[in-house]
Amino acid sequence: MTDLSSTIPLCSPIEDYLKNLHARHQSCLDGSVADYIPELAKARADWFGICIATRDGHVYEVGDARQPFTIQSISKALTYGLALEDRGEDFILSRISVEPSGEAFNAISLKPGSGSPFNPMINAGAIATCGQVLIKDGQSRIQRILAYLSGCAGRQLDIDEAVYRSESATGHRNRAIGWMLRNFGIIDEEPTDILETYFQQCAIRVTCRDLAVIGATLANDGRNPLTHEQVIKPEFMDNILSVMSTCGMYDYSGEWLYRIGLPAKSGVGGGVLAVLPGQLGIGIFSPPLDAQGNSARGIQVCSDLSRDLALHLFASGSAPTKAIRITYDGSQVASCRHRAKSMQDALRGKGHRIRMVELQGELIFSTFEPVVRFILKQAPYCQFIVLSLHHVVNIDDVALGLILDLRNRLQGSGVEVMICNADKFFEVLASKGFEEQTLFVDDDGALEYCENKILFSILGAKDAIIKPVALGDTFLLHGLAADDLEWLDHQLPAREAVAGQHLIRSDEPSDCLYLLLAGSIEVYLPAASGGRGKRLDVFEAGRTFGEMGFIDGSARSADVVALEPCTYRALDRDLYDRMGRERPAVRMHIQEQLSRQLAASLRKANIEMAAFRA
Amino acid sequence: MTDLSSTIPLCSPIEDYLKNLHARHQSCLDGSVADYIPELAKARADWFGICIATRDGHVYEVGDARQPFTIQSISKALTYGLALEDRGEDFILSRISVEPSGEAFNAISLKPGSGSPFNPMINAGAIATCGQVLIKDGQSRIQRILAYLSGCAGRQLDIDEAVYRSESATGHRNRAIGWMLRNFGIIDEEPTDILETYFQQCAIRVTCRDLAVIGATLANDGRNPLTHEQVIKPEFMDNILSVMSTCGMYDYSGEWLYRIGLPAKSGVGGGVLAVLPGQLGIGIFSPPLDAQGNSARGIQVCSDLSRDLALHLFASGSAPTKAIRITYDGSQVASCRHRAKSMQDALRGKGHRIRMVELQGELIFSTFEPVVRFILKQAPYCQFIVLSLHHVVNIDDVALGLILDLRNRLQGSGVEVMICNADKFFEVLASKGFEEQTLFVDDDGALEYCENKILFSILGAKDAIIKPVALGDTFLLHGLAADDLEWLDHQLPAREAVAGQHLIRSDEPSDCLYLLLAGSIEVYLPAASGGRGKRLDVFEAGRTFGEMGFIDGSARSADVVALEPCTYRALDRDLYDRMGRERPAVRMHIQEQLSRQLAASLRKANIEMAAFRA
Repeated sequence: MTDLSSTIPLCSPIEDYLKNLHARHQSCLDGSVADYIPELAKARADWFGICIATRDGHVYEVGDARQPFTIQSISKALTYGLALEDRGEDFILSRISVEPSGEAFNAISLKPGSGSPFNPMINAGAIATCGQVLIKDGQSRIQRILAYLSGCAGRQLDIDEAVYRSESATGHRNRAIGWMLRNFGIIDEEPTDILETYFQQCAIRVTCRDLAVIGATLANDGRNPLTHEQVIKPEFMDNILSVMSTCGMYDYSGEWLYRIGLPAKSGVGGGVLAVLPGQLGIGIFSPPLDAQGNSARGIQVCSDLSRDLALHLFASGSAPTKAIRITYDGSQVASCRHRAKSMQDALRGKGHRIRMVELQGELIFSTFEPVVRFILKQAPYCQFIVLSLHHVVNIDDVALGLILDLRNRLQGSGVEVMICNADKFFEVLASKGFEEQTLFVDDDGALEYCENKILFSILGAKDAIIKPVALGDTFLLHGLAADDLEWLDHQLPAREAVAGQHLIRSDEPSDCLYLLLAGSIEVYLPAASGGRGKRLDVFEAGRTFGEMGFIDGSARSADVVALEPCTYRALDRDLYDRMGRERPAVRMHIQEQLSRQLAASLRKANIEMAAFRA
Repeated sequence: MTDLSSTIPLCSPIEDYLKNLHARHQSCLDGSVADYIPELAKARADWFGICIATRDGHVYEVGDARQPFTIQSISKALTYGLALEDRGEDFILSRISVEPSGEAFNAISLKPGSGSPFNPMINAGAIATCGQVLIKDGQSRIQRILAYLSGCAGRQLDIDEAVYRSESATGHRNRAIGWMLRNFGIIDEEPTDILETYFQQCAIRVTCRDLAVIGATLANDGRNPLTHEQVIKPEFMDNILSVMSTCGMYDYSGEWLYRIGLPAKSGVGGGVLAVLPGQLGIGIFSPPLDAQGNSARGIQVCSDLSRDLALHLFASGSAPTKAIRITYDGSQVASCRHRAKSMQDALRGKGHRIRMVELQGELIFSTFEPVVRFILKQAPYCQFIVLSLHHVVNIDDVALGLILDLRNRLQGSGVEVMICNADKFFEVLASKGFEEQTLFVDDDGALEYCENKILFSILGAKDAIIKPVALGDTFLLHGLAADDLEWLDHQLPAREAVAGQHLIRSDEPSDCLYLLLAGSIEVYLPAASGGRGKRLDVFEAGRTFGEMGFIDGSARSADVVALEPCTYRALDRDLYDRMGRERPAVRMHIQEQLSRQLAASLRKANIEMAAFRA
């Protein structure tokens, strides 16, 4: 067999696909490079880059992905986010409408009456938007816009001064628009400074790769996937993406959404930025523009990407994953506390009163709504419902509200709702009124809590406590003849431990097995940090522990610690061997019981496994 | 403890929310009922219904959810789907554009030059759309439209004849539009019949509940969630939903998408249909209309619903769930085939060459792309990569293409890609060239296949087969003294079985344990149907079976069948008891080995459990 680890790394089918796509469109030079200012006309018609940035920050790039060019109108979508942040949605909407105009980008389309621009993606709307950005924290408008865009791109961007000066020198039509906006009171000051800011904003230098990363930031709720900085406030994502959807591609916007189906924005520098919300960002760079002012090759490439990778916003098959990952009741999976037989009997048949629901993915209305129905259906048969959040990525406020509402409703019917694996949601749940004692670190803790409460309700306080067990009442020695028991009583040294004391440490040799006569102990894996790792078992008086290593002779694999003052007996290998010669019936009895205990554990493990594999 | 199962059913927080929403808006009577024809003017201004239908067919309804009214312009979105199906996207786009017009619904907005209507949601576009529906299969246009809409609603709809006649009697403006369309060649026949079809289509009677179900059909890739009928072809979902997004709410469409963020369509009958793609459908019914011709209360209620339930298409936090559910290698989880020690030794340390990747949810580009990266990273260390599809809901063509591409690439590097739990994707995978022997019913079969191939490559054909085992080489009796072995050889009756023969049947008493000397056996749960259920274990020559029931005395819980001709020995309880008296050392040896075997199984189960609980 060849050693595969030495072979050259495999090429990704996705990289290959993008390379082929680039090659396929390389020769297409439809459209013409913008030439209304000489600086833009300098762009080469054959510059061509394609980038995709994923929501987790992986960037695929092909061609001229690092060639700088000016962002132009793509900046409009982002400055709109900054203006919303500065002024709020209501204020901005009162100044700038959000209706597609059906007109060209440089039309002076102001709504009759109010004079508000049709939308923030046409020049009139973009200049008005620029005017709403606040001068604050000692920063000018353009400084704030530049910092905002740099945050989205994940690196410090700069302004192409030559392009800026050229735009400013020839931007008379935009000056006319600026004064019309002043006339209608859409901007509150003379437009001169605002226009310079606007010209500078359009001259910010980006690469195709930057556009993809900005797109991924928009796809990732405004958090840059490379720097993890929250650049855009999540509450404004819907505003920005909606306006890009209806007005982002000039008077091709309707057909763009129809054919390509991605919120997008183009610029006369040749850039196209497209976003598949929640998923990825795309950047395309190709300077020749079509009649509508969009990058001709950019549209063709996006059209192929959307079709080939099925990225259309409304492509079929985009249902959210089911929120219930696994569900089982306490009769299928028990906590790892091994209880005395009397308690096991008391618990038997009541396990179904504990319902564990492991949730996963994003909890939003549509994913959590079936969970609500499921829980309401289960509730009449339950005393406890435990929601495990281990595999939950996010809970929105709606799902959080429904969890709390359900908790309150069910409490009224005597059903307790608990949360486990709540770690990353602990604070928000606690702040919403979830009592700390209903939030558990892991599912085992929650199961044990439920079992304890069931035991308490069945047996009462007096009988639900762990009672000391006589040697002959331990599982291992139960049923042994009286004289054998008396003999053993003299052979097995008695030991005691205080709460917190180690009875076994991992990696020690396994030369004994132990009989717990009073108290309870916890078995856990040592953590990598040296502390306490995952809890494996809790044993109570009457139970044997340390038997696995004793049977197969391997070193101890876990730590055992007393949970309270404990009394126990130790059975070492010498005595065990001697017993085989002197009291074979005793040894056979112990072996028999050990096998039974192992068989019971194995049956339990198999049932649990079946629940998890379902 | 009270018996909770007798308490009255709990009310759903979602139903309560909708009731409150309905009550909150009940008194709002903004707008005026359409009165351009007397039949519409008869609608009561206080009729008010709210419905939500989920993708899995659950319908929440409040208020006048069953009050019939005419569908009016909402029909436009659906007839557009039928026309696309009849004529194809390119043809339809050549006749009817998809740009928002920024004008009122009854404007005669035809594009200069081509004369094509701006979009199919304004009257001109809708009449043109109607004209593209084919008369076929002996069915008139209106019969086909009615059947199509009935399919979406999940019940037989009918036409309100009075409204139809009234619309027809007064529809002069629409007749003018019809003749303009004929003039520009947008429709190919005189408009008379087409207009009557259009008037009838608008007069189809629906309820608010119907609208929600139609919405859920649109949300569910065109498959009605109640009847499960595929009504709309999935390939046209993006077209319909895009047009609804940009043009569905007349000249309020931009602001609607901005504020409410749901593809939608309204009608002058007072209906509003909104869709959250992939998730749910909403129907609102309230006749008074606002200045733009949309149900005034419908807009307010949708606005509240979108905000309260976070339904905006671009609401933050809508990331797809991670596609990798669990991943482990063959050293963490082995197949349930218990092999001879020589093979176990050969396999030891090679388990990591088998990589199991359990996938989940929808496999689309964005969810599968990280899987591609993961697999490429693992490939150099692997000989086998197994993708489990048990929890996969859907695989789109893109993800399917990537799976196939990866399979081919990896094959070139000596890594086999296999699929397990492929049941529902079996046909499509086979049709794409996945060989049948790489598709497995369950993960265990795939694991076993990989282990077998590894064994074969290490040991060669000669040593990788199951060899008969001498009595003293069975695990249970290994290490026993020669005379004890000879004694046992006479005590244990030899048995034989042919392939397919039952050795144990579930529910029989457990009075024996068995030693397998040649061949292999399979342990499986009986299926509810009486056939063969889940496979639990495969044992090969040298192994003990039937020990669990023998130890704890419970009845047999599984069936055991010979996979090939087998030879085995039976050890019954009488002999075991006698052995305790006559040959205690032999019995102790057997007990010791049984314990070791159980301990080994338990350790394996614990490791597997940890992999699944991760």
